[in-house]
Amino acid sequence: MKKAIGIFDSGVGGLTVYKAIRNAFPEEDLIYFGDTARVPYGPKSPNTVIEYSIQNSRFLLQQGIKILVVACNTSSAVAVPALQQLTDIPIIGVIDPGAEQAARTTKNKRIGVIGTEGTVRSGAYTKAIQQLIPEAEVFSIPCPLFVPLVEEGWQDHKVAYSVAEEYLADMKTYDIDTLVLGCTHYPLLNKTIQAVMGDKVSLVDSADAIASYLRRYVPDDNDGVQGQDSFFVSDNENKFAQIAQRILADNFGSLARVRLFESWFLD
Amino acid sequence: MKKAIGIFDSGVGGLTVYKAIRNAFPEEDLIYFGDTARVPYGPKSPNTVIEYSIQNSRFLLQQGIKILVVACNTSSAVAVPALQQLTDIPIIGVIDPGAEQAARTTKNKRIGVIGTEGTVRSGAYTKAIQQLIPEAEVFSIPCPLFVPLVEEGWQDHKVAYSVAEEYLADMKTYDIDTLVLGCTHYPLLNKTIQAVMGDKVSLVDSADAIASYLRRYVPDDNDGVQGQDSFFVSDNENKFAQIAQRILADNFGSLARVRLFESWFLD
Repeated sequence: MKKAIGIFDSGVGGLTVYKAIRNAFPEEDLIYFGDTARVPYGPKSPNTVIEYSIQNSRFLLQQGIKILVVACNTSSAVAVPALQQLTDIPIIGVIDPGAEQAARTTKNKRIGVIGTEGTVRSGAYTKAIQQLIPEAEVFSIPCPLFVPLVEEGWQDHKVAYSVAEEYLADMKTYDIDTLVLGCTHYPLLNKTIQAVMGDKVSLVDSADAIASYLRRYVPDDNDGVQGQDSFFVSDNENKFAQIAQRILADNFGSLARVRLFESWFLD
Repeated sequence: MKKAIGIFDSGVGGLTVYKAIRNAFPEEDLIYFGDTARVPYGPKSPNTVIEYSIQNSRFLLQQGIKILVVACNTSSAVAVPALQQLTDIPIIGVIDPGAEQAARTTKNKRIGVIGTEGTVRSGAYTKAIQQLIPEAEVFSIPCPLFVPLVEEGWQDHKVAYSVAEEYLADMKTYDIDTLVLGCTHYPLLNKTIQAVMGDKVSLVDSADAIASYLRRYVPDDNDGVQGQDSFFVSDNENKFAQIAQRILADNFGSLARVRLFESWFLD
């Protein structure tokens, strides 16, 4: 039996990662879990994000997966070492692929990173980038309102532009040539972010980065059969289905709500 | 032994309710629980909000309380009947106090309500207001970005004004004379909301409303001893403490993080 690639995110944002992986690996079976009952992870403490990430991973491991992709940047930044204790299969977060792509892209070795509070506070991108380019200068800024703006569908709204102007005012003074969009929601704001930063700054999208990074881990042993798509969420399956159909179009497969913790009602 | 008034909210927003109750009842012991590990409740499904509300209430009931105040509007809108099955003590949500105050305030019987998606979708304020004034016309609009704007500390920022202009554009055409701020965070935006709506519209703050409503349930049998303040959160106790000290000043008492569900790690 074909084993799937498992992907989890705090909610719907990881669907940008899902889509990139589906396009790169049309024959793989993919299973997605979105923790919509506890989204967002960005403002929460590392311990809480680790707890949630462990539970999400256990659920996916129970489905029999061969690789676990952590699509959520905040989880990737703090939880990967804890997840590696659960299993021997490869666990791929979005930080290393994003850092590699930033390192390949930059010419002046001045790189910006935007993300959630949790991701920025962890310093994970800075460490990963400086492992590749020790002399790189990395400038990180948290942009907490970007996620709710995207969830509200206001990514191209003038309010999004004002918010980006405010968050990125300092970033524009750092003479960076590369900016990592360190949150799965941010690629949906890329037009706004590019307009604020100007054309000379290259944006690095972790969704694209992880899909090409994954090639190293997925053996090319496919059978010509189109892969299956399965989606699970912990809340709001109807809202998820609407967003997923918009982002994924044809690739939207089966969807179920799972209650990760039946004991919630038991005490 | 003195029994306390228990108060829960999805996070820090309910501290506006806490402060109003503390001011109205200086001799009562108060216990607050903020579910900062799973905030926000507004965009989540009724079933999930009910589950979380039951768990929060069980925690407070274990502390031995005499009255349970549901400070969160979203929980108040969907979970009170389920909570009443847990206990015989009075359970007071913010909807009825807010509806009563709106009914007392309006002259033209045209009332606006703003709140989270969950609160607006439930129709709870409309039902409660029309029980008091059957011929009242109630206009409800969800304002999802108000909560993250307040959490970011941008309540007086020009972006908050633009967002309020956008959300309230239709509301301004309804000829209302009273607007219910149906979310604990919104009173922190009252200057902005008042500026957008104009001086002729009276704002109803559920925090004030509930404190006077509570008088009916709290016997006046106090002993002249200043009440105790205890705070519990499910995550981010340091961030909570900063915000609580800003909102409550002198009334900020003991704080602990509780993990409601130790089984999270056990599976």
